[in-house]
Amino acid sequence: MITKQQIEKLARLIRYYSLTATSEAGSGHPTSSLSAADLMSCLLFGGIFRYDSKNPDHPNNDRLIFSKGHASPLFYAQWAAAGIINGKELMSLRKFGSRLEGHPTKAFHLTEAATGSLGQGLSIGVGMALNARYVDKLSYRTFVLLGDSEMAEGSQWEAIQLAAYYKLDNLVGILDVNRLGQRGETMYGHDLNAYSRRISAFGWETIVINGHAIDEILSSFKKACTVKDRPVMIIARTKKGQGVSFIEDRDGWHGKALKMDELERAVSELGEVDTSLRGTIAVPDDVKPDKKKAVVPELPSYSTDAIIATRKAYGNALKRIFPAYPDMVVLDAEVSNSTYADIFKGAYPDRFFEMFIAEQNMVGAALGFSTRSKIPFVSTFAAFFTRAYDQIRMSQYSEANIKFCGSHAGVSIGEDGASQMGLEDIAMFRAVHGSVVLYPSDAVSTEKLVEEMAKHRGISYMRTTRAETPVLYDNKDEFSIGGSSVLRSSKDDVITVIGAGITLHEALKAYKELKKESIYIRVIDLYSIKPVDADTLKLAAESTKAIITVEDHFPEGGIGEAVRSAITEEHFIVHSLAVRKMPKSGKPAELLEFEEISKDTIIHKVRSLL
Amino acid sequence: MITKQQIEKLARLIRYYSLTATSEAGSGHPTSSLSAADLMSCLLFGGIFRYDSKNPDHPNNDRLIFSKGHASPLFYAQWAAAGIINGKELMSLRKFGSRLEGHPTKAFHLTEAATGSLGQGLSIGVGMALNARYVDKLSYRTFVLLGDSEMAEGSQWEAIQLAAYYKLDNLVGILDVNRLGQRGETMYGHDLNAYSRRISAFGWETIVINGHAIDEILSSFKKACTVKDRPVMIIARTKKGQGVSFIEDRDGWHGKALKMDELERAVSELGEVDTSLRGTIAVPDDVKPDKKKAVVPELPSYSTDAIIATRKAYGNALKRIFPAYPDMVVLDAEVSNSTYADIFKGAYPDRFFEMFIAEQNMVGAALGFSTRSKIPFVSTFAAFFTRAYDQIRMSQYSEANIKFCGSHAGVSIGEDGASQMGLEDIAMFRAVHGSVVLYPSDAVSTEKLVEEMAKHRGISYMRTTRAETPVLYDNKDEFSIGGSSVLRSSKDDVITVIGAGITLHEALKAYKELKKESIYIRVIDLYSIKPVDADTLKLAAESTKAIITVEDHFPEGGIGEAVRSAITEEHFIVHSLAVRKMPKSGKPAELLEFEEISKDTIIHKVRSLL
Repeated sequence: MITKQQIEKLARLIRYYSLTATSEAGSGHPTSSLSAADLMSCLLFGGIFRYDSKNPDHPNNDRLIFSKGHASPLFYAQWAAAGIINGKELMSLRKFGSRLEGHPTKAFHLTEAATGSLGQGLSIGVGMALNARYVDKLSYRTFVLLGDSEMAEGSQWEAIQLAAYYKLDNLVGILDVNRLGQRGETMYGHDLNAYSRRISAFGWETIVINGHAIDEILSSFKKACTVKDRPVMIIARTKKGQGVSFIEDRDGWHGKALKMDELERAVSELGEVDTSLRGTIAVPDDVKPDKKKAVVPELPSYSTDAIIATRKAYGNALKRIFPAYPDMVVLDAEVSNSTYADIFKGAYPDRFFEMFIAEQNMVGAALGFSTRSKIPFVSTFAAFFTRAYDQIRMSQYSEANIKFCGSHAGVSIGEDGASQMGLEDIAMFRAVHGSVVLYPSDAVSTEKLVEEMAKHRGISYMRTTRAETPVLYDNKDEFSIGGSSVLRSSKDDVITVIGAGITLHEALKAYKELKKESIYIRVIDLYSIKPVDADTLKLAAESTKAIITVEDHFPEGGIGEAVRSAITEEHFIVHSLAVRKMPKSGKPAELLEFEEISKDTIIHKVRSLL
Repeated sequence: MITKQQIEKLARLIRYYSLTATSEAGSGHPTSSLSAADLMSCLLFGGIFRYDSKNPDHPNNDRLIFSKGHASPLFYAQWAAAGIINGKELMSLRKFGSRLEGHPTKAFHLTEAATGSLGQGLSIGVGMALNARYVDKLSYRTFVLLGDSEMAEGSQWEAIQLAAYYKLDNLVGILDVNRLGQRGETMYGHDLNAYSRRISAFGWETIVINGHAIDEILSSFKKACTVKDRPVMIIARTKKGQGVSFIEDRDGWHGKALKMDELERAVSELGEVDTSLRGTIAVPDDVKPDKKKAVVPELPSYSTDAIIATRKAYGNALKRIFPAYPDMVVLDAEVSNSTYADIFKGAYPDRFFEMFIAEQNMVGAALGFSTRSKIPFVSTFAAFFTRAYDQIRMSQYSEANIKFCGSHAGVSIGEDGASQMGLEDIAMFRAVHGSVVLYPSDAVSTEKLVEEMAKHRGISYMRTTRAETPVLYDNKDEFSIGGSSVLRSSKDDVITVIGAGITLHEALKAYKELKKESIYIRVIDLYSIKPVDADTLKLAAESTKAIITVEDHFPEGGIGEAVRSAITEEHFIVHSLAVRKMPKSGKPAELLEFEEISKDTIIHKVRSLL
């Protein structure tokens, strides 16, 4: 059993490492690290945290997320004190090529998820805790270190309410109330009851402690591990810069490394530091989740004369492919009867998680599931994913494996009006590093592409349509990420029209009408917008006079720009039809016409180019 | 004085209008309207709400926001009951060309702000209430009708905490707890204390009532108007579909219009409806805010050899131009010492609002200020505006006049790493209808463009750079929205290089080095990315062999695609240098090199094209 004195010594070592590494880097957050050094020393080395650091992938390891990602010096220092990082590597903090980045990223193998945009860690923890309690049924706990400033983010309260709703007694928040934000005092300063009152009102157990008293910290962790059916928040009164008199609890020291002479004074104040000291972390029970056997899914079975919305095919696909991908979980933000995620819910209720109208937390939780080897499918209206763009953005730095589905794309939703129309979702998801953006036009391609999403590791987005549309493909047809489908082509093609989703059907109608006049257009179903099938596009550009893209999306960042970027080197002409007028309520057909993305506009545009 | 019976009759009329208009439309939300009909009838016609409906712009009018925007039938019905909309127009609900859209928009002149994405109204109300209490110093109250489902959105809690912090006793929330969300029961059902406990823990006065008892409603409103120094939430137990037995409090009736036979039964259940009845709204005190006189601002005064970050010039400009734009207010999300909004704060502390780390509420509040004729400048790191993309998106439907400034753009911020780098902000803001996107490269152009933003009515975004950069322009130079500046050109130009922000300086360095070898490039400062100066771009495309764009942003939706879309008809070749590798920590120069957007990469690319 480790003694209080040994934990204190380790905390001193952690402080030493935090200070020296940031001074060596010339930047970073030593003071925000020092406030939580005692908390982390107790957690890791006090027998609380159970983690096989030689096997970070062990499914029953406890998880620890630094929601206050700017305390990365502390994060690395604690692993150094645990013997995982050596002192020399610590000094590479924030340097180009080092795995010890300014905020934790997956470059360092023990980072659970990249953080640094505040207010996201608790949601990620919710996903991990949901996984432990409801999916893997394991005993691991999830700990989240939180800053007090970041409690102002609404996403925190989304996570807090949902964790209570799902009775996540395996989730422990550690709130480091060091009073000072970046530019001054937080809203509540050192009023710990302000936090306790709010958090307990949401149904959490709260424990208020002195975050620098080892005994209090240890007993709060022990108590936290006994609470049943609700999450626990340890609310710790701390001092920013604790341990160094001239920076302790002082404003103006946020995000500043100590200069070398200051460092010298600071280190002398810490007292004797034993750099050979290493703490020991408890090991977890060696249990693993049951593995379900994957079986080959059935083919979809749409009749060729069927009319069915792609959003419904999405729901059908989730249900159909689950036996092949038993690691799937499905999350939805209180609109599962619109996105049709409820078809999956009906079939596999224990793998469906109602996340209520709180999209930020939904995406964060999906990332948590993803880190625990699950395949999360996440759905809401396309428009409402904008609510979680920061979480989506951050997940690209966490090697996330998340499948997003946004329904109700574009003006074609009709009467509900602009607020419900996804008109910037393609732009948003395209601007995510390494993302996949899919936009199928019929039920068969939707089903097949949902399966491709399940197979693909990474961030992928599918856009679905509210309206019912005809089936275009055979159930045996294949669709691939980066592919496209040339639906109409002949040697007489004069113009190429590229559509996806609702506009592809307009293009096909235009084809039919123009054909009567012996005007032949090539029609391409660009179901994969990113990556895009540049070869097919170039071929079309070479063999026809011009390309017209038609999209139910704003022009910026959409299909037109994706196509232009794909064939730019070939300097072909791409004309873009897109949503360029302020959208409004009306019938779908009226709105397609109004925005000039309808069959008639396509025909008019083709004629003007002949 | 109106009687209880008259209010009930008006509520019945409102129910009648809500039901008939949605049935006529064939879609919409009658049940969500009926639950709040009594609340709104009391508010508007019970002598509480003070509003000169003949003069909706009266600065001392009370404000009413339907945060639950899907209750638009109620919204229009109440104005019909007030005599503002006639019965015939009500029947145009949701039809193409009608100003009565599916969710409230500015097409209808009494809509304060477009709603329909949930959890946004309270933030808008916070902005209006801040304006009344701290800026205009008027007695008007702001009322916000909230749904219970939307309380799951974190943005609500951002607004709740900030309203309490700023002691907004002129803000009254009306929470319509009708128990049922879209696909079933909410998290807390009819547990009104669950809401009361949470909201009062945040420092609000809460009043729990029966939302269908006229006496209780009226006395709660009266009490709300007496509370001092804190906001009030009236928490009303209601029934969805109240007044019609077969839809009342029943699941499965969200967002469904009654069929004509159902409507007939429903109307017969309402009892006698007097369609000639009209309610009277109280008038406000006829007071107006003091108007400050605008004076011409001084010119900036940078010396030509100065090195200064554009983010700092942003702060300087805010301070400099305020006397010319006395309606300015400045909001910042706890990073004002990084965005340099704190320069303004130092000079005009009463016009600066600390919004803490809660970007969603900050943007919503800015919209509130904007509706009250203020000119809000809103700043945080460019990356963190992603947190508020839904609020930004929605503000485009509210005729918003908001000026956004995102600092710390791109990989050139250096050591802090990817989480802090704005790499999708151009894509995000370009995909807003009618938006302006600016990206100045030096202090002078930043100053001038901040002033252009203040002048311009609409949504504009400026991207600023963390690093210090040389002054390029004379203090008397002019810059315009939609403009650009050709910094290097000659008759011998072979290639055009387009930069903005940090990359423009790389382009200028490349020019200098290539010039030594008598290779001349044209260098364009594309400080206005949207609208973009297509004429200058076309001229460059015609007179040089190719165009190279260089941007510290992901390629999708960025400068490269903006340029390609501007000159597509001319089929010129545009090569895009952009951030294409997973960004990381390092020195700014190392990262520009790594991402291939540095001077050396430009030189290399130019050579490869010769």
